[in-house]
Amino acid sequence: MCAGDDVNCPEFERHRAKMREALGMERRSFLKSAFVATGGAAALAAGTASTLVTPALAQASAAKAPDQPSYHYLPANDQTVHWGYFSKKLKPQVEIDSGDIVTIEALTHHANDDASLMIKGDEGAESVFYWTKDQKKVARRGAGDPNDTKLGGGGGLGVHICTGPVFVRGAEPGDVLEVRIVDTKFRPSMHPDHKGKAFGSNAAAWWGFHYKELLDGPREVITIYEMDASGARNWAKAAYNYKWTPQTDPSGVVHKTIDYPGVPVDHATIKKNTDVLKGVRVPIRPHFGVIGLAPKEADYVNSIPPSYTGGNIDNWRIGKGATMYYPVAVEGALLSVGDPHASQGDSEMCGTAIECSITGTFQIILHKKADIAGTPLEQLEYPMLETKDEWLIHGFSYANFLAELGPNAQSDIFGKSSVDLALKDAFKKMRTFLMTTKGLTEDEAVSLMSIAVDFGITQVVDGNWGVHAVIKKEIFADASV
Amino acid sequence: MCAGDDVNCPEFERHRAKMREALGMERRSFLKSAFVATGGAAALAAGTASTLVTPALAQASAAKAPDQPSYHYLPANDQTVHWGYFSKKLKPQVEIDSGDIVTIEALTHHANDDASLMIKGDEGAESVFYWTKDQKKVARRGAGDPNDTKLGGGGGLGVHICTGPVFVRGAEPGDVLEVRIVDTKFRPSMHPDHKGKAFGSNAAAWWGFHYKELLDGPREVITIYEMDASGARNWAKAAYNYKWTPQTDPSGVVHKTIDYPGVPVDHATIKKNTDVLKGVRVPIRPHFGVIGLAPKEADYVNSIPPSYTGGNIDNWRIGKGATMYYPVAVEGALLSVGDPHASQGDSEMCGTAIECSITGTFQIILHKKADIAGTPLEQLEYPMLETKDEWLIHGFSYANFLAELGPNAQSDIFGKSSVDLALKDAFKKMRTFLMTTKGLTEDEAVSLMSIAVDFGITQVVDGNWGVHAVIKKEIFADASV
Repeated sequence: MCAGDDVNCPEFERHRAKMREALGMERRSFLKSAFVATGGAAALAAGTASTLVTPALAQASAAKAPDQPSYHYLPANDQTVHWGYFSKKLKPQVEIDSGDIVTIEALTHHANDDASLMIKGDEGAESVFYWTKDQKKVARRGAGDPNDTKLGGGGGLGVHICTGPVFVRGAEPGDVLEVRIVDTKFRPSMHPDHKGKAFGSNAAAWWGFHYKELLDGPREVITIYEMDASGARNWAKAAYNYKWTPQTDPSGVVHKTIDYPGVPVDHATIKKNTDVLKGVRVPIRPHFGVIGLAPKEADYVNSIPPSYTGGNIDNWRIGKGATMYYPVAVEGALLSVGDPHASQGDSEMCGTAIECSITGTFQIILHKKADIAGTPLEQLEYPMLETKDEWLIHGFSYANFLAELGPNAQSDIFGKSSVDLALKDAFKKMRTFLMTTKGLTEDEAVSLMSIAVDFGITQVVDGNWGVHAVIKKEIFADASV
Repeated sequence: MCAGDDVNCPEFERHRAKMREALGMERRSFLKSAFVATGGAAALAAGTASTLVTPALAQASAAKAPDQPSYHYLPANDQTVHWGYFSKKLKPQVEIDSGDIVTIEALTHHANDDASLMIKGDEGAESVFYWTKDQKKVARRGAGDPNDTKLGGGGGLGVHICTGPVFVRGAEPGDVLEVRIVDTKFRPSMHPDHKGKAFGSNAAAWWGFHYKELLDGPREVITIYEMDASGARNWAKAAYNYKWTPQTDPSGVVHKTIDYPGVPVDHATIKKNTDVLKGVRVPIRPHFGVIGLAPKEADYVNSIPPSYTGGNIDNWRIGKGATMYYPVAVEGALLSVGDPHASQGDSEMCGTAIECSITGTFQIILHKKADIAGTPLEQLEYPMLETKDEWLIHGFSYANFLAELGPNAQSDIFGKSSVDLALKDAFKKMRTFLMTTKGLTEDEAVSLMSIAVDFGITQVVDGNWGVHAVIKKEIFADASV
């Protein structure tokens, strides 16, 4: 019998719809049970000395949350995503309480690099990418003019498909939002020939750090990678690559380069090369390039440059088991998730990672301003990452570019970044962290940073370049502070 | 009975000399037996697919070496070190054959920050640092004027005490020298109160990246760290710190800042603060900041900026178990070792690591130009690091600053560096490595770099700033290339 995978079956469409529904339910159910299995809400009050949340703060925050956390599921479709920007003006997609669990589907904005592998048959993705001469379901893509006709709505000033925002009840400016990444799952391909696989796209694009140095002249190259959708196989492999050719979008605009997100690539115009990276196994590092809150400084903020409320940090360590802390800038916090990656190296050299749709499950905990006073989170003015063994601080060329660069911040930032500036910012933030959280003097903090903190290049392709500073928790296991 | 540790014994001096001699013999004997235990020469021909040395190359190189490797011991004393510079003019301290094992004592140039802990009673260190009004045993410190009277001989244009050079018989320009770090041992303190301990100094100095950003105004701070000399304890702890005060050297020159290496700090002029980093455990990462060959471009080369022949790379991964590959620039290669560190973080933020004397044992293998043709080492024009699991490429702001910056290269380099430039160099070198060693096309190499290569900040304090690119070997375990 046709299980929705036999195009010759007379009832193919009905069977396929049924399969998709079953798949969706299975996915939701699986994720829910996975959450329960991991201890669910029990973790909420488990603040220990090894986290930035003191036991007293954990208790204070838990006391303000419902006794039992609720579970929410936020699918990705044309109604639940905003494309290419953050905005404090957005209508929340879901309202949650502190402590609640939310599963959020995140779609890669590069799925149209091979629609047959990453969109076709996937109801949510199909609705988001839907674009014909007469209708473009998600019309605005970017923080620019919503009616821009040169490239398309939003002007492509921002590229990430963001699911959300999630409104956290009670969240106000000055609070800190803790986001625990409980789980990540690849979004399986619906291609009948590729059951159990997931696909992603790496674009070596004009905004890459490598671009001006190319030996064989300027070109943009897409490489499609294949993953085991279960995540059991810990490596990805290249499927094929092709050079970007001018693509005419359904509205008739020609895109000579990758200058607007979600342009469908007509595979009749490109030349597939399957002789690519033979036998090379790329270790997977599933994570979200974008998790962020709405900034307060502007109504519409390009999703590309990361800032003090997070966003496009592009650190591959922001994956399963990690916890992020963000300063809340607007009422409800307005959390959105996007830019999922199957893997990325520190620097994101060529402009993108393996861009691959992923569904994440998050526990979200609100820490009120009054409660964080005197705790390690008190002076948190930047997005901070905690893993099992490490604390990571994110420095940017401009810590808050919207506030620092004035009215033209959103365009100026793209010409002003350097790794040196981002390193300076990471140094300053790590110094603050060591002095406030660990009670060190400036001299102690400076010495410790030179001998025990590793500074790495997060990315040099997101307008506001990033450097992360890593310090091991074990360093303080015995410290009195 | 006095074992050389009772200053009240009438025969103290004789007993002490005996103890030192015994200690020295014990150290040499221990290191020799450690070498034999690790398999010694058997490793020489063991080139496998997981190293850059192909089995054929290993065989060709072994065929040119003696059947049995010899063992050499190079102590550090006023006769065996050159201070602050590399030079092709130096008389070799030892001549070896390819495959030989050399144990080399390396002294930290910061030992005089606390002579009682790091010099006194240590014959070799005492001879190197010996400096009275009438005699300075190692007079030249730096690549500058050997008779400079403003700061001292050599002008302090270069600071590292380098032991060597080691002359490798048969080495010629175009060859590659493989340096395997077989072992590292802390140099124990001779202070009678601190048996079994080793000490190091961290100087937060004017050349640090942090310096202009200090909250409490400009100052240089020395922090002394204590290690377990056996290396069994995997962490260091701070002993005390003090602010640098103007120091008058034995020749009468006043050093308001740390502007000349080896100036004895008069502890009567400083204020020790022992309330420092209480309970903080710094993970140890014993390594050599400086291992390098003599460059061909100039007669005397400041030891601070790293370059294509290595030198002051300051990557903490250059420790026990690691292998370095260097392009040979002059006859005999002229390898020197110095700047030992107990630990350092990526960036070496404040200007120094935990600067701590260490004795290393190395196996040194020469690969001739004719034999490396067609192997991964063929186009090696930069210092490369191989660890058990990774290959690391070192990028610098200027890959070969001596050749690129002209006659004033040695001074100009200090004003021209940026992390951005070093990242670009690391990108280009990693691309070359992937294309030549792994046979990838430029498009494959660029994509792989974005998704599987981590770029980190090696150091931003050595004039020629560094970025390292890390790629895991397992990526290619299954590859046909």
